[in-house]
Amino acid sequence: MNETPDASGIRGFVLLTTPTMKTSDTVELPLGFRAAGIAAGIKRSGKKDLALIASDLPATVAGVFTTNQVKAAPVKLGQQVVARGIARSIVINSGNANACTGARGMRDAKRMAALTARALGVRVEEVLVCSTGVIGKPMPMPLIAAGINRAASALHDGVALDAAEAIMTTDTRPKRATLKLKIGGKLVTLTAFAKGAGMIQPNMATMLCFILTDARVERSALKTALRAAASQSFNRITVDGDMSTNDTALLLANGAAGNATLKPGRPGWSSFTTALNEVTLLLAKKIARDGEGATKLVIVNVSGARNNEEADLAARCVANSLLVKTCWNGDYPNWGRIMDAIGYSKARIAEDRVEISYGKLVAVRNGVATNASIARLSAVQRKDPFEINIRLNIGSGNATIYTCDISEEYVRVNVDYVKLTTGKSPT
Amino acid sequence: MNETPDASGIRGFVLLTTPTMKTSDTVELPLGFRAAGIAAGIKRSGKKDLALIASDLPATVAGVFTTNQVKAAPVKLGQQVVARGIARSIVINSGNANACTGARGMRDAKRMAALTARALGVRVEEVLVCSTGVIGKPMPMPLIAAGINRAASALHDGVALDAAEAIMTTDTRPKRATLKLKIGGKLVTLTAFAKGAGMIQPNMATMLCFILTDARVERSALKTALRAAASQSFNRITVDGDMSTNDTALLLANGAAGNATLKPGRPGWSSFTTALNEVTLLLAKKIARDGEGATKLVIVNVSGARNNEEADLAARCVANSLLVKTCWNGDYPNWGRIMDAIGYSKARIAEDRVEISYGKLVAVRNGVATNASIARLSAVQRKDPFEINIRLNIGSGNATIYTCDISEEYVRVNVDYVKLTTGKSPT
Repeated sequence: MNETPDASGIRGFVLLTTPTMKTSDTVELPLGFRAAGIAAGIKRSGKKDLALIASDLPATVAGVFTTNQVKAAPVKLGQQVVARGIARSIVINSGNANACTGARGMRDAKRMAALTARALGVRVEEVLVCSTGVIGKPMPMPLIAAGINRAASALHDGVALDAAEAIMTTDTRPKRATLKLKIGGKLVTLTAFAKGAGMIQPNMATMLCFILTDARVERSALKTALRAAASQSFNRITVDGDMSTNDTALLLANGAAGNATLKPGRPGWSSFTTALNEVTLLLAKKIARDGEGATKLVIVNVSGARNNEEADLAARCVANSLLVKTCWNGDYPNWGRIMDAIGYSKARIAEDRVEISYGKLVAVRNGVATNASIARLSAVQRKDPFEINIRLNIGSGNATIYTCDISEEYVRVNVDYVKLTTGKSPT
Repeated sequence: MNETPDASGIRGFVLLTTPTMKTSDTVELPLGFRAAGIAAGIKRSGKKDLALIASDLPATVAGVFTTNQVKAAPVKLGQQVVARGIARSIVINSGNANACTGARGMRDAKRMAALTARALGVRVEEVLVCSTGVIGKPMPMPLIAAGINRAASALHDGVALDAAEAIMTTDTRPKRATLKLKIGGKLVTLTAFAKGAGMIQPNMATMLCFILTDARVERSALKTALRAAASQSFNRITVDGDMSTNDTALLLANGAAGNATLKPGRPGWSSFTTALNEVTLLLAKKIARDGEGATKLVIVNVSGARNNEEADLAARCVANSLLVKTCWNGDYPNWGRIMDAIGYSKARIAEDRVEISYGKLVAVRNGVATNASIARLSAVQRKDPFEINIRLNIGSGNATIYTCDISEEYVRVNVDYVKLTTGKSPT
């Protein structure tokens, strides 16, 4: 296939990736990466709960992290590694978040890094640690130490569904994508896998996402690319409005593909960032769709706000309104709750200019009901995904938020979360 | 009973009201007030849905209203009456909110006022209108017109449970209180009744509250007293974080008790405001407790914040967190979710100074778990009501928010709200 940089690179990317993107269940490791996922016994269910990712070459690394003031120990540690900019490995456990665990939590996170460094023969400063699960419990370190050694012996190249599985908690669906593109004649692979189903809200989520590529990317350019990608994907999803203590998205680029170093202005940069944006948006949508108990992905578009920030505020108010979300779970297109939510948002609105559409079907015009039939609006609302288009008609600000409905199942899962994950009852 | 103004007025008030407050199912109309509640056919269920309140004398009136930018027509109309300061009657319907109904909605609200004025022989400028129910549907005016006439003929003094019943929507419990106190030798009655169970959040709620008193109160003093009372009651409750288009609390004082006009600095003022605060807080707690599907009242106290505003932000984040609320519905005291919520609030916190107690039992100290047993914490969490006490230990700001748990029943009610209230299905 022909490719000339840079605009045709995008075309080449589209041609190449469309078939690959469809096989989203694949986690095809890029060149020079190995991974493994095993059951270390952290989860009582006996499911996989420890994953290891290793790069044969030092990789440039970028990361985005939760903005919660309460940060889990591994988040604080990971921020230090990312600040240095080079990583060789990531160790990840599910079943325990190592959050609100004080000095002991930080010791345990550092020990996880040290154990991994020793098992892989790399420097401890190049090991990232991620944890997800219950908050406030000490880490079961003997299980984790043994698990790290077993995972290190199990490292493999090729397809790494085991690692992707080991990071899941209440997820019911995999969130994975592998995408290939040619950059300067070299085949580059971009693979991403994520977890997250609850505590998902603006500015990251209880979300872990690992993006691996064999492209060679300049360190500060990698940071720029990840921030831009996150701002249009992970930071635009919400399941329940709660923001986790552990959210982390990491991007490692080890250069094994042999391309000329990518950075802004260089050939292939636009292809690379387009691919990265596509992969992160795809995963973000999968996370929103897999909200605990959710039955559909809902895309909330707000346009015509005074500015983009206010459009964002309005869209988030709608996407986080419990009354709106429960309504979406049912058949009845109760647009009054959407009017209510934008009305109490911090975005300026003029009630008599508001237009609300379900897909292309206009339900509200100038703030009052059109004659669109309830049955037709209901038919749109029952689709997965479906779009709510809100036009405020007072300016030119736009924003999109990806979210889901809230069902009785969401409540069931979260009332019983601890029992569900540990099998223990407090009484 | 002896009473000397003013400090002993408070003592007298406490003595007098304690037995009365216990009989909270009573709506004993103050002197000079009459009321009625009837079934006008707005609700398909055939339940009472139209109430009328009339004062034989012109009453001073104060009101607090939703701060939502989308305001129902009767709210806009009511604000005009309150601005003039004198009222003779309130007409209230449930089953239809008359919100997002445009010019027609305003015409219908004005017509309700005119019909009431004619039926009672009072001036239309002295009639307040309140509506609650589904948003975006035109008002069934023929039913309402006939209903107003029937309610006018049914007006009675004494106990007005019928009026209190007619304003309810998804409420499962009455929210009523009658309180008597002596002011300057005159017996004064304060009666309040409210509705509200969902769409309840800061700065009012889908909440209607009517407070009637036969005290004589100066107009601007009445406004001051209601604002102060609302700020420590109705503005401190949240069920689901949604703020309605119709919230209204009205306070009418018709002077039939014959006391000397009350205002700040005058004898009895402190007794009156204390009584008003007690009645509004009692009703606010009843509203929070009756959150749709709720099983308990939860009192969230935050202290030691940098200032009161930040304490309020932290308390609201906890009280509105879906993960925290679902957790409260279960047995497991998952305090990690509380840490998470205060961490993403806009209040500054220092993780290693945070203390969280369930009642008096300290679960978290310096940001990490104490050795309080899960079973004992769980026992506190299963109480109704129970208190969460959060000490941030970085300043002297305090706030309290009254809220409830979120159950599967909340979702069931709100997924099917329209079907539930109208019997109609969209398909």
